[in-house]
Amino acid sequence: MDKTDVLIVGGSASGVVTALTARRYHKGAQITLIRREKQVLVPCGIPYIFGTIGSPERNLIPDTLLSKNDVDLIIDEVNSLEPAKKTITTLGGTTFRYEKLVLATGSTPIVPPILGVELKNVFMPKKDIDYLKALSKALEDANDVVIVGGGLVGIEFADEFRKKGSNVTIVELLPHCLQLVFDEEFCSLAEKKLSERGVKIRTNTRIEGIVGREEAEGVRLNTGEELRADIVFIAIGVMPNIRIAQEAGLRIGPHKAVWVDEYQRTSDENVFAVGDCAEKKSFFTGNPVALRLASIATREARIAAENLYRLNRRNEGAIGAFSTVIGDFSMGAVGLTEKMARDFKYEPVVGVAMAPDKHPASMPNTSEMKVKLVFDKATGQILGGQVYGGLTTGEVVNILASMIQKRMTVDEVLNFQMGTHPALTASPISYPIVSAAEDAKSKLIMAGS
Amino acid sequence: MDKTDVLIVGGSASGVVTALTARRYHKGAQITLIRREKQVLVPCGIPYIFGTIGSPERNLIPDTLLSKNDVDLIIDEVNSLEPAKKTITTLGGTTFRYEKLVLATGSTPIVPPILGVELKNVFMPKKDIDYLKALSKALEDANDVVIVGGGLVGIEFADEFRKKGSNVTIVELLPHCLQLVFDEEFCSLAEKKLSERGVKIRTNTRIEGIVGREEAEGVRLNTGEELRADIVFIAIGVMPNIRIAQEAGLRIGPHKAVWVDEYQRTSDENVFAVGDCAEKKSFFTGNPVALRLASIATREARIAAENLYRLNRRNEGAIGAFSTVIGDFSMGAVGLTEKMARDFKYEPVVGVAMAPDKHPASMPNTSEMKVKLVFDKATGQILGGQVYGGLTTGEVVNILASMIQKRMTVDEVLNFQMGTHPALTASPISYPIVSAAEDAKSKLIMAGS
Repeated sequence: MDKTDVLIVGGSASGVVTALTARRYHKGAQITLIRREKQVLVPCGIPYIFGTIGSPERNLIPDTLLSKNDVDLIIDEVNSLEPAKKTITTLGGTTFRYEKLVLATGSTPIVPPILGVELKNVFMPKKDIDYLKALSKALEDANDVVIVGGGLVGIEFADEFRKKGSNVTIVELLPHCLQLVFDEEFCSLAEKKLSERGVKIRTNTRIEGIVGREEAEGVRLNTGEELRADIVFIAIGVMPNIRIAQEAGLRIGPHKAVWVDEYQRTSDENVFAVGDCAEKKSFFTGNPVALRLASIATREARIAAENLYRLNRRNEGAIGAFSTVIGDFSMGAVGLTEKMARDFKYEPVVGVAMAPDKHPASMPNTSEMKVKLVFDKATGQILGGQVYGGLTTGEVVNILASMIQKRMTVDEVLNFQMGTHPALTASPISYPIVSAAEDAKSKLIMAGS
Repeated sequence: MDKTDVLIVGGSASGVVTALTARRYHKGAQITLIRREKQVLVPCGIPYIFGTIGSPERNLIPDTLLSKNDVDLIIDEVNSLEPAKKTITTLGGTTFRYEKLVLATGSTPIVPPILGVELKNVFMPKKDIDYLKALSKALEDANDVVIVGGGLVGIEFADEFRKKGSNVTIVELLPHCLQLVFDEEFCSLAEKKLSERGVKIRTNTRIEGIVGREEAEGVRLNTGEELRADIVFIAIGVMPNIRIAQEAGLRIGPHKAVWVDEYQRTSDENVFAVGDCAEKKSFFTGNPVALRLASIATREARIAAENLYRLNRRNEGAIGAFSTVIGDFSMGAVGLTEKMARDFKYEPVVGVAMAPDKHPASMPNTSEMKVKLVFDKATGQILGGQVYGGLTTGEVVNILASMIQKRMTVDEVLNFQMGTHPALTASPISYPIVSAAEDAKSKLIMAGS
């Protein structure tokens, strides 16, 4: 039987970050990472393999990250776990004894139970190089692509598939694309930007089945219509990979992920779980929440890694911060939308502002930026923000993430001590985060009088 | 005698923002803004008139901002103030009675007391359209430009003058350019980037005088050398414009600016002062500090404007956040550098990290980003940060500004809930703010054991 101090199962973002952080805080420990894949893709880069990056090989997490940090890498698949004995067994037949185990087994795309889902040329966003190469090859001969699901993943693939020249249609069940992430006015704008880039969008529409003999030839909609499709790409969400944990008797949470405490410990104190396979709680309500993002996964990995031998770092719950790109238009959201705030029984007060993202607007590469902030009327605290603009959008969303994490009040956001520069930011006269806070504050004052 | 409720003196960034914010919070008030200039330049855009924007007319604060918000605009110059009578008198001969007065009179470039400073073709960064047009015209015939002062303003003008083809030399008194803003390793890199763009740099060097008969022909250095110069551009700092306040008997602070309390009130309770003309305190020490930035000015303007009729918003002291651009290389700093932290008697603990600012690094327009964070060993709180990278640098600095403003500890920065996207941010695996905090944390743990 092989032995190791820290055993990490899974080699995507959260597994790698667990290993690197464990090395930082537990200098002497033997750290072993077991993963199935020969090479690991950068998960968020996967949509960009097709039009922007060019090939899966240009989108890899380099194994030198592990070797440089003295992490033993084993390519094998874990088949079973015995927490009482502190062992795992692999499909390759090896048994490992661990002191501390970290499950970073990730998630798998949901396969909807519809007719024809098994046909050739039906694809999903799988983190598998050969699979994605087959998709890339299929795209070369495809005229018509139907994407099932208009969430972040669906629209990112849509925009990239368009760059390859395909005729792309998104079919979305809800009234709007991105509706689980943005308020309606932002969703509508995203749909407009997608349309301008030639992506067709069918909202309020369900796929009843995929048509074809061996290969997909089209999809049948609930309206009775049929859309032609050489490729059907299904992006309707992911399911946590929990088989090993479940069979080992570890507690499973309400979102079918491995239950963890605030230290990322599972129901067994020597087993931790991080990333998409681990249950998450909301920063706002403390209730279980189904947020699955690489940025959350890596944060949980850092928490677990420091806690392996001494409980020190706590998970205060996930805020959820996203950004995405459609052509040269970017948008992002963090925390609660206005609608989510209402659903969570807050009384939201909203502030909105727009300004060029450089100053003066005659500076090169200036984009119009819009910021919408959501505050809680009772406490004045910032609950969420939505942003669109140019290439700084992702980091502007992250400014808001920092404000939300520290529960800044509207008065503190008003007093935000940002720096400004003509080529890099909006003007100090109209910096949109501050202006949106002023807008919300005036409404709060009016509401109070 | 004319009367108005709120009278604002000065029409640059802080004057305009005072007017707009006063309108937001005091709906019924008559608001009047008096300024000297027919048209007002975006102050931070001034260096970019020459190479990037093209002309001063493309770098204006539009007066429609005022008219749309029902602010009366008067082009005239205030000559005297009588706080006891609540009146001001203009050079044009008008007397105004105000209820509340806001001084936003700005600052003027310092003219060093050296020989030849009055010669033709000696310029300074004045916020005056005709003056800048004369500089622009002089640049067309100039081969050699000497810039006196290697601070932010000096290097920005240097980079822009190079775009016009001039032979540019910066002469800096200190051992490094930008030394008052960045730690040495960042200064050295900025100097390297400037050199790569063809800017010559003479540090540890003093200008003893400007040589020439009517026009500047060169500068004499303390080394005895002479540098040829068709234009000498002096950017060694600014002096607050306080004549009116001083003659009216208002209290003046230790940095020769108008003294103000935490509400931006001067020693007269109906007179406020904001921006470059107002004294500032450090966020860290509470002591007077000579930070003069448009972003600070506009924040003070918002504070004063809400406080005019009811004291409500406090100034917690200036953090100071900067960013700048050299070619396509950007750098920025916020709060205390490592050196400043030591000077202020903190025991700094530093964390450093580098990563590509997009992910994977094969994404287009990827720049290497470096983040250096400075924490206080005693409390674990973040005191400052320095960043270089691409076009997101300014907003990454602003993430740090938000963290500093809320006095985040190293453990909170570690847990930063940022979002990530391949085209917009660094990878969640190596997001440099978080990695730099991990670096600092490991040092803190080692120091503690």
